[in-house]
Amino acid sequence: MSTPEQAGAAVDEQRRDACLTRAAVLKAARRRFSLHGYADVKLRDIAADADVSAALVVKYFGSKEALFAEASSFEGEAAVLLNCPVDRLGEHLVRTLLDYHERTQADPLLRALFTSSRPAGATFRENFERQFVAALSDRLSGPDARLRAELVCAHLLGLGAARLVLRTGEIAAQEPEHLVARTAPLLQSWIDGTA
Amino acid sequence: MSTPEQAGAAVDEQRRDACLTRAAVLKAARRRFSLHGYADVKLRDIAADADVSAALVVKYFGSKEALFAEASSFEGEAAVLLNCPVDRLGEHLVRTLLDYHERTQADPLLRALFTSSRPAGATFRENFERQFVAALSDRLSGPDARLRAELVCAHLLGLGAARLVLRTGEIAAQEPEHLVARTAPLLQSWIDGTA
Repeated sequence: MSTPEQAGAAVDEQRRDACLTRAAVLKAARRRFSLHGYADVKLRDIAADADVSAALVVKYFGSKEALFAEASSFEGEAAVLLNCPVDRLGEHLVRTLLDYHERTQADPLLRALFTSSRPAGATFRENFERQFVAALSDRLSGPDARLRAELVCAHLLGLGAARLVLRTGEIAAQEPEHLVARTAPLLQSWIDGTA
Repeated sequence: MSTPEQAGAAVDEQRRDACLTRAAVLKAARRRFSLHGYADVKLRDIAADADVSAALVVKYFGSKEALFAEASSFEGEAAVLLNCPVDRLGEHLVRTLLDYHERTQADPLLRALFTSSRPAGATFRENFERQFVAALSDRLSGPDARLRAELVCAHLLGLGAARLVLRTGEIAAQEPEHLVARTAPLLQSWIDGTA
């Protein structure tokens, strides 16, 4: 028989394991949904990436649709991407996105793109527009702020697609800082409203 | 009994019909492959778009993989996109791509993206790189020509994704010429090597 303290510790450990496992599955799901169309993403592949069984994924999340819905929030990523004064935001956006690529091999903007044609994708598209595009637009002054915010997002999307998915020669091979130097000034000119 | 002339005319007509039907199926396939991941594209949907039976699509093309391979050439589109002196190419690229969107609801760069994770997608990615990215890069002078060409392509890709797939509010709603005015100068500065 275990003491109440031991039983409590065991429950705590289970909770911690469950939490870590959920986080690992979510991370794997975000990566898969960044690189492939929805129908090409298999639960068993996500499970394998996270080093758990497919049954455990179903136990924790219910279904692929439900896992996708949970993986589709943009809030944390948008907060990090936008966490910079607006006069240096162009550079920060590119550097943060490239750093996210390096760390996770995933891309939140591509996730929105690859899943947008699904019924459940509408939620994600809304999250993306509200949590990122609108939040960026709110920071900009001058005419056409919303359009300029969307052009910045479109450019980041294209950059992620070229680097992570199409892996075109130079964009895939370049050091992040070289890409920052080449692209940030143009993004900043949309942000400032000078382009 | 038909005369030899009548029989010959009937064969000509059959050939013409077959040619038109093939073209309609290819157009429908290009559109579907521009907007959805490969696994989400169904032969029966392509057939319905082209107003023919799925059996006829199989008869003409053999299989979805074979149809995809045929839909994956980039040559004609790249020739039109690049058919402009280099000092006005930025404007021409954006205008031609947006015109292509209007006419076909499809996008050759998105086709490369959405299919690139498939085994057959490797062919398409190679076509895209050789027929478009390398052809553009060959036109540019100055340092980092290939990287600058890839950045132009990445930007066009992001613009197409925002306009056709994510349909973000302003980019989807704007008149093409307004988008040309906002984006072409930045593309031109990569083309010229001033950015």
